[in-house]
Amino acid sequence: MKKIEIPEVVKILSENDNFLILTHFNPDGDTLGSGYGLMYALKTLGKKAKVVCNDEIPKKYSYMFPETEDEVENPFIVAVDVADETLLGKDFQEKFGGKVRLCLDHHVSNKEYAEYLYLRDCAAACEIIFDVIKALGVEFTEKIASCIYTGIATDTGCFMFSNVSADTHIKAAELIKCGADYDNINRVMFETKSKGYFMLEAAALETIQMHCDDRCAVMFITQEMLNKSGTTASDCDGIAGLPRKIDGVLCAATVRERIDGSYKVSLRSYAPVDASAICCKMGGGGHARAAGCEIKRENLKSDLEKLLSFIKEELDKV
Amino acid sequence: MKKIEIPEVVKILSENDNFLILTHFNPDGDTLGSGYGLMYALKTLGKKAKVVCNDEIPKKYSYMFPETEDEVENPFIVAVDVADETLLGKDFQEKFGGKVRLCLDHHVSNKEYAEYLYLRDCAAACEIIFDVIKALGVEFTEKIASCIYTGIATDTGCFMFSNVSADTHIKAAELIKCGADYDNINRVMFETKSKGYFMLEAAALETIQMHCDDRCAVMFITQEMLNKSGTTASDCDGIAGLPRKIDGVLCAATVRERIDGSYKVSLRSYAPVDASAICCKMGGGGHARAAGCEIKRENLKSDLEKLLSFIKEELDKV
Repeated sequence: MKKIEIPEVVKILSENDNFLILTHFNPDGDTLGSGYGLMYALKTLGKKAKVVCNDEIPKKYSYMFPETEDEVENPFIVAVDVADETLLGKDFQEKFGGKVRLCLDHHVSNKEYAEYLYLRDCAAACEIIFDVIKALGVEFTEKIASCIYTGIATDTGCFMFSNVSADTHIKAAELIKCGADYDNINRVMFETKSKGYFMLEAAALETIQMHCDDRCAVMFITQEMLNKSGTTASDCDGIAGLPRKIDGVLCAATVRERIDGSYKVSLRSYAPVDASAICCKMGGGGHARAAGCEIKRENLKSDLEKLLSFIKEELDKV
Repeated sequence: MKKIEIPEVVKILSENDNFLILTHFNPDGDTLGSGYGLMYALKTLGKKAKVVCNDEIPKKYSYMFPETEDEVENPFIVAVDVADETLLGKDFQEKFGGKVRLCLDHHVSNKEYAEYLYLRDCAAACEIIFDVIKALGVEFTEKIASCIYTGIATDTGCFMFSNVSADTHIKAAELIKCGADYDNINRVMFETKSKGYFMLEAAALETIQMHCDDRCAVMFITQEMLNKSGTTASDCDGIAGLPRKIDGVLCAATVRERIDGSYKVSLRSYAPVDASAICCKMGGGGHARAAGCEIKRENLKSDLEKLLSFIKEELDKV
């Protein structure tokens, strides 16, 4: 592995003509925006390039897709926004493990698996691709601008998170000038939800219970709510973040009933509360601010009491 | 009324020494950010300036407050982000009606009530104040930058709405460079909400009615909901944006019951639906994507039918 800088990235990209660009599994706006943005830039230079993903790419990103896919032979393999080969997904890891020549990434946790690595700690991988495209001397078409804007907007919660820098906004300004379709992109990525989702949200909000002097909130999602609103478990991803947003709450649990009657607990916290430590005590795990555990149907009451006592222990440390 | 440009604004501000800055009632981040941002800039120039509002200013904006309030005698009266004297609020309208010397505003529906008006159609009044402060030759302190950032962020839904321009991002970049506390501001303005707010949201979501082949959503907020959730009209600002987020909706109305039994309608649309045109037909006004009007208690049913027919007319043009 060799860590390189932008001029070397440009040299490597210039010296090759066929590119296969790998994105991470469960693809998001940043890995896809990086992949497609880079792909269009390389095509502009007369090269062949193709973006692939282990998983199906959700339809909402279809505005990034090319009209026709290039056939790439003996491609030079680039990974974008992929911190670790395991994040390529199971099949892709088997297929491309050890074969990634260049990795462009913004995760400081990068596992340095590629032959060449350009790593910079910034809000989005698309911020890096922005600089690479500029250094390649390629102008931002509307399509490229929309791809790069997507990654920057999605990885910053639409410029809301602490990872935003002045430079992030300067890049956004240039992308908008170049025709990034930011209005529609923001609408699709951040605004639009199904009516069912809102009905589920309304029903879930009604169940919120406050604990530990209002520093802990617990919200419930039942199978009945999912059925009534016509939503599925995957609609619940965003909802788990809701109760933490209540003023004063430092730790919030969303308890979702599964089809088999067991419960999935999603715990979200604000610093310094360690959600992972709490969930570990319940036999689960995760990250410091987002962790999870399971509760069996027959233990709901007693396990919830346990969970609350562990939460209280952590809150008492604050 | 005389329409003026920035150089004349600078001249007028330079020629006076005592300023009373009026914000609109039910104050939001943009009117307050404009008011306090301008106030600090004028103080930097050795002048006295004070921001006032007809209504109590919510605590979450307290980071904008000065340590001590200036006493201003025979002040030159400036209104910021106030499109119409009625928006000063009842008491202030009586007190300051016909007395506003200078109005700085970004609402194209401005009623031209002030002696001098600087009006520009941009995302936030704070974008105008940004330019005025620059033209005054005042450097952005951290405090000024935080005030101006607040207005820009809140009036654009954190850079999410279609009113954002490349210039909006360029201004945000400069404000961040000057020390705007964007991380905390974004958390307070967009993330954290009171438990009552969430309860209000849940109750309001339950009332949603779909019209015009699901392209229009109408949501109701009653005094009972406000009382039950312990929230006030000012908590409703964000909620008005909710029904437009439903997949397929192009125009959404939030109908809020006032204490006096009248109703405030907040209309939100997506391009190309002109919310302002619809509200103008109802005797109201506003922006293309966010407008409002009033409905009297006794006319609720018939006026809602009228509103829906005007909405249908606009939707049929799409």
